[in-house]
Amino acid sequence: MDKENSNKKKLSDLGEFGLISHLTKNIELKNNSSQKGVGDDAAVLDYKNKKTLISTDMLVEGIHFDLTYTPLKHLGYKAVASNVSDICAMNGIAKQIVISIALDKRFSLEMIEEIYEGIHAACDKYGVDIVGGDTTSSLTGLSISITVLGEAEDEEITYRNGAKENDLICVSGDLGGAYMGLQLLEREKNIFLDNPNIQPDLEGHDYIVERQLKPEARQDIVKLLKSKNIKPNSMIDISDGLASEVLHICEDSNLGCSLFEEKIPIDYQTHKMAEEFNINSTVAALNGGEDYELLFTVPLDKHDIISSIPNVTIVGHINSDRNEKNLITRDGTKIELQAQGWCNFKE
Amino acid sequence: MDKENSNKKKLSDLGEFGLISHLTKNIELKNNSSQKGVGDDAAVLDYKNKKTLISTDMLVEGIHFDLTYTPLKHLGYKAVASNVSDICAMNGIAKQIVISIALDKRFSLEMIEEIYEGIHAACDKYGVDIVGGDTTSSLTGLSISITVLGEAEDEEITYRNGAKENDLICVSGDLGGAYMGLQLLEREKNIFLDNPNIQPDLEGHDYIVERQLKPEARQDIVKLLKSKNIKPNSMIDISDGLASEVLHICEDSNLGCSLFEEKIPIDYQTHKMAEEFNINSTVAALNGGEDYELLFTVPLDKHDIISSIPNVTIVGHINSDRNEKNLITRDGTKIELQAQGWCNFKE
Repeated sequence: MDKENSNKKKLSDLGEFGLISHLTKNIELKNNSSQKGVGDDAAVLDYKNKKTLISTDMLVEGIHFDLTYTPLKHLGYKAVASNVSDICAMNGIAKQIVISIALDKRFSLEMIEEIYEGIHAACDKYGVDIVGGDTTSSLTGLSISITVLGEAEDEEITYRNGAKENDLICVSGDLGGAYMGLQLLEREKNIFLDNPNIQPDLEGHDYIVERQLKPEARQDIVKLLKSKNIKPNSMIDISDGLASEVLHICEDSNLGCSLFEEKIPIDYQTHKMAEEFNINSTVAALNGGEDYELLFTVPLDKHDIISSIPNVTIVGHINSDRNEKNLITRDGTKIELQAQGWCNFKE
Repeated sequence: MDKENSNKKKLSDLGEFGLISHLTKNIELKNNSSQKGVGDDAAVLDYKNKKTLISTDMLVEGIHFDLTYTPLKHLGYKAVASNVSDICAMNGIAKQIVISIALDKRFSLEMIEEIYEGIHAACDKYGVDIVGGDTTSSLTGLSISITVLGEAEDEEITYRNGAKENDLICVSGDLGGAYMGLQLLEREKNIFLDNPNIQPDLEGHDYIVERQLKPEARQDIVKLLKSKNIKPNSMIDISDGLASEVLHICEDSNLGCSLFEEKIPIDYQTHKMAEEFNINSTVAALNGGEDYELLFTVPLDKHDIISSIPNVTIVGHINSDRNEKNLITRDGTKIELQAQGWCNFKE
């Protein structure tokens, strides 16, 4: 208690400028395009002849995360990774972020530092510079808003509307894990709230818990495809479930698709947990969010190269008929794909 | 009540994607550098041989604004203007913004549209494109996070650390108005809360109320200085009071300054309201925030050109002694300048 109070005191003693300079004093800029970082009214960037990619995301306490089971360091990491993932989805490389954080009086300096530890860890991992930000108080709750910038050559950029007839539909990694991790964490939280003597039982579930709490942006896949001279015709990151994202690509490209249930990559832990919850693991993969894997389409003649890449799975193909967007189940039944992606405005 | 319910229903019916597409469907990109706007994982920008400037700001309900007396449209306008002001402070021209908004269940579709009306009005005024964003729910309160991008030639950019000995210190417009407007609005709010039959009396105070609720970024001054071939040696926008900003320039440039109290431009309405509140209007100008005027320094030989520009006032000069950062009062007394700018972490 005493320690907490002394931290709080330090925070208001530091003030806004003090806090910002405390949090940013050790930043070393890694990228040539970061000409001037934190410390003036704006940062100065130089993308030379490359295009600049920009995307933004806001994480709000109680909506996107629950601090009962989310370590602050993981939260900071995930906030960066989910943004970097958007740049990956354009086939670009993330280079800079600016971060705004609003926090209420529960937060001590140490807690803010933990969030920043995670932010810095993700920035190191993805080679991203922090070039600006805003730190402010809030009446209740923690919000983190990140804007990410990245670069790409014009001809490298992959849009959602670029899919072509007969394209192979590919996904990286495996799906549904983040969703099943969330179900597990929520269950253990409720057990703990009912009886604080029972400790959370997460043993043997480390993979799906990590999928939920500390997802990675698939920058490795972007680089791998580049090294193999494959430029996807279309690409998107899977933040709202496979179904929702495939439909985005089909609708924007004005085409249809066939997804094969048996091809959808699902980890053993995800299957097991889905069984425990009596959830169809295909449904978890189709509609569960936050996997941050990449979904992309490539011309049919890339079949052999794609098949040889570990961590990439061909799950279907693009059809010419825009009214045919189907999932083909294991027994060969055709089901119309529907987006039931996560919506935070549901009452 | 019925109308409100039907709006709320519409909002959750629309869902996140529906709301975003509703809010962004009429966006027309104005700038050549905006190659691709809303609608993919990231926007694509092309700054060619110019530098990219980037800054971010977050406005939180209960901390930065009070919806009791802040019209939503004005709030949207101010959120954009305060960000554009940071690009002006670098001597650049703002070109794009991305906006994240978190809102709780009080907000109907009409209310969000009002915020966006203000955002669009400011974007039109400053020639800025909306190229991305995120709209999410929150448990309590409204937050608006905006990141702004702008452009400038490398040699045009003005930093805080560029002030030179004997530079003239100049400010645009007048100061302290936004602060006195806030005092007035807070007073009238408290009167209203004590007795809801008494209507707010803002008559004759329209200027300072507007300074608080709908400030402008001084893009006009940036363009004017350019047209007169004046490149400030240093520049900053006045968001935390004149004292705090002058000290930023002095500290970053490793120099001192003399500010002359009698030169500080203060509007008649600001003086009058300060008198009513028994506040020294110089203190309001030095320490009151949110004027969003520009503070800049120019070489001494620009004295005559600067003097001829309406809306720009020379308020002092830069000294070589970094330990001498003074305000010279009307009676010639030297007082050490102190930053008492607004701090939102005060308890």
